[in-house]
Amino acid sequence: MSQGRPPRAATATGGLAPLGHRSVALPGGGRFWSVIPAGGSGTRLWPVSRAGRPKFLLPLLGADSLLQQTVDRLAATTAPERTLVVCGPAHAAAVARQLPQLPEANLVVEPSPKNTGPAIGLAAALIARHDPDAIMGSFAADHDVRDRAAFGRALAAATEAARAGWLVTIGLTPTRPETGYGYIERTDEAVVATATGPVFRSARFVEKPAYDQAAAYVASGRFLWNASMFVWSVRSLLAEMARLQPALHAALLRIADGWDDPTRDEVTAEVWAGLAPVSIDQGIMEHAEKVAVVPAEMGWSDVGDWHGLGDLLVPDAAGNAVHGDLVQTGATNSVVWSETGRLIAMVGVDNVVVVDAPDALLIADRAQAQEVRRLVDLLREGQRIDQL
Amino acid sequence: MSQGRPPRAATATGGLAPLGHRSVALPGGGRFWSVIPAGGSGTRLWPVSRAGRPKFLLPLLGADSLLQQTVDRLAATTAPERTLVVCGPAHAAAVARQLPQLPEANLVVEPSPKNTGPAIGLAAALIARHDPDAIMGSFAADHDVRDRAAFGRALAAATEAARAGWLVTIGLTPTRPETGYGYIERTDEAVVATATGPVFRSARFVEKPAYDQAAAYVASGRFLWNASMFVWSVRSLLAEMARLQPALHAALLRIADGWDDPTRDEVTAEVWAGLAPVSIDQGIMEHAEKVAVVPAEMGWSDVGDWHGLGDLLVPDAAGNAVHGDLVQTGATNSVVWSETGRLIAMVGVDNVVVVDAPDALLIADRAQAQEVRRLVDLLREGQRIDQL
Repeated sequence: MSQGRPPRAATATGGLAPLGHRSVALPGGGRFWSVIPAGGSGTRLWPVSRAGRPKFLLPLLGADSLLQQTVDRLAATTAPERTLVVCGPAHAAAVARQLPQLPEANLVVEPSPKNTGPAIGLAAALIARHDPDAIMGSFAADHDVRDRAAFGRALAAATEAARAGWLVTIGLTPTRPETGYGYIERTDEAVVATATGPVFRSARFVEKPAYDQAAAYVASGRFLWNASMFVWSVRSLLAEMARLQPALHAALLRIADGWDDPTRDEVTAEVWAGLAPVSIDQGIMEHAEKVAVVPAEMGWSDVGDWHGLGDLLVPDAAGNAVHGDLVQTGATNSVVWSETGRLIAMVGVDNVVVVDAPDALLIADRAQAQEVRRLVDLLREGQRIDQL
Repeated sequence: MSQGRPPRAATATGGLAPLGHRSVALPGGGRFWSVIPAGGSGTRLWPVSRAGRPKFLLPLLGADSLLQQTVDRLAATTAPERTLVVCGPAHAAAVARQLPQLPEANLVVEPSPKNTGPAIGLAAALIARHDPDAIMGSFAADHDVRDRAAFGRALAAATEAARAGWLVTIGLTPTRPETGYGYIERTDEAVVATATGPVFRSARFVEKPAYDQAAAYVASGRFLWNASMFVWSVRSLLAEMARLQPALHAALLRIADGWDDPTRDEVTAEVWAGLAPVSIDQGIMEHAEKVAVVPAEMGWSDVGDWHGLGDLLVPDAAGNAVHGDLVQTGATNSVVWSETGRLIAMVGVDNVVVVDAPDALLIADRAQAQEVRRLVDLLREGQRIDQL
């Protein structure tokens, strides 16, 4: 690859700054790098989450956005110079401003969404040029983790297995028969002995099961939620990608190889346009040779919909999770979220979601919070672009 | 009274313009006059109905306000010159502008709310000075009547009985065991023979009964809702007032007697301040000698709360009554009212009320729509004066 090129003047500090003297100045290989694919629109959190301001950019659980919290959570493990965020062009400015500590070169802008395979693969290819022995972890930008110590322990165990050549998923112990998630079945084969917990060989990945199936998975004790937390050596990942997705692998190497050239954007755009979208799960993990999983409990949530977000807020005495100015009589177990500061008054309703945005208002049955996605589909069909 | 005074220059045209030459110019006694007490705050229709812009001023059922619709409904019977509106100072300007056809002198501003007894009594006293033989009907400013022909027939029957000296209520055949209304029990004694329907002597008035009682009333066929529609001769009313409420009667005559004097406002304010609040029902009708009732069905509603208002709107296919921009999936039997034009999105909720005002938002169980009044009490206790 490009390590053999003549050095060029560095134009940015740290991180993925152009190779050259820096590849010599940073010889310490095998360090831990964090990658945060910041994609997805979070339509189930409409009308707060919008195409232009998706879930990961929003301060849904405190003053910081979910992206900022994700970076902060990883700061214990990864310095900003070894943290990469992959996002789309529409969100590059917001990400750059929310993460001032992130070196400019570490903001990787994918020209268009091609699912997680290309996004995570490109990050791996770029890291490999700087640190061929790097261990890389990939973490969604819009999830919540309450127990950071448990997260750290799982990450340490996963890193040990990754150093031994395994592609590792940190899998969450399921707490309910959720039909919206993917599951990972583990074997009883411990692949490495770690001080921080077991790492098992994976048996298989299962996408969104039916309810009865999901219930059986939870009861079995052998299935874990796939929360898109991956740890591997970039060497192992790229080797499996070369085997399983050779066209993608070649394309990503071509992009990475020209990353420091003045033609980066042209080359990237051209090559990227030809990529077939594929998820890292379906493209790599489901077919790879050495796949392992670390079972973990860490107070994880994908903050997937208003019902789930409500569970993460401290409820009032009537069980209402309130972000805003609520006056109520007889209203219980509801989720109230205001972006406008308007008074919200509730009378005698139970288990509803009320979301008050400047240009739209949502009232939903809390048990049907997932269906907000369908509502957004209706808006799209109706060309209600102002509200998307 | 003042008919013997020397004529003064008329300063307004028609209606209750100062007596004098006009009392000569309009000699035709015994005509029908309409009085519309425009009071009440309509708190159950919060947050659209507010203290400063109460229910009767709002266009809740079409382009015209309920007050405008009330005047229009009476126009078949009463020219503007014989229509009086009684309201409080805070609403005088709005009433004057909503009813440009109303002579200025026919807008009677009561200094403070003293319930319906003084308001209706003052109108009667003022009418009596112009037309001692007048028949007067009094009709709430904020009710809805769908069947105007039926209303007209009931009014004709009531007028016949009123000419015979009866104090007449037009009572509505109850359609449900409503506990929020007053009821009138009728006898079988027909007091006059009319071409447009029976008029019965009343047995008694009952205020807001318990549910079981209300159910028995509805089943009996002898009870009618008291919708505050009264018809009487001003002579009969004032005679009963002199007997049953002598202090009120004397006070109202004193105000009426000085109505055309430059000191009207001072006299009115002073006398009015000393009045004890009393309803026309409790102060007069429940104790009067010759009380009759006209049973009627006219598609009447008091437009009392959001549930009731919803019943008056044309529902969509899912049974939702919508005034605004609704996009929904699985939402049924709900009432949606927007004052802002914002998109309202609903998912999977049934029987809710959603009202979107610029500074406040209401979400209520439709079956508990009456409790909105309690919510407004909470706002009052909380000194939320901006939202009252």
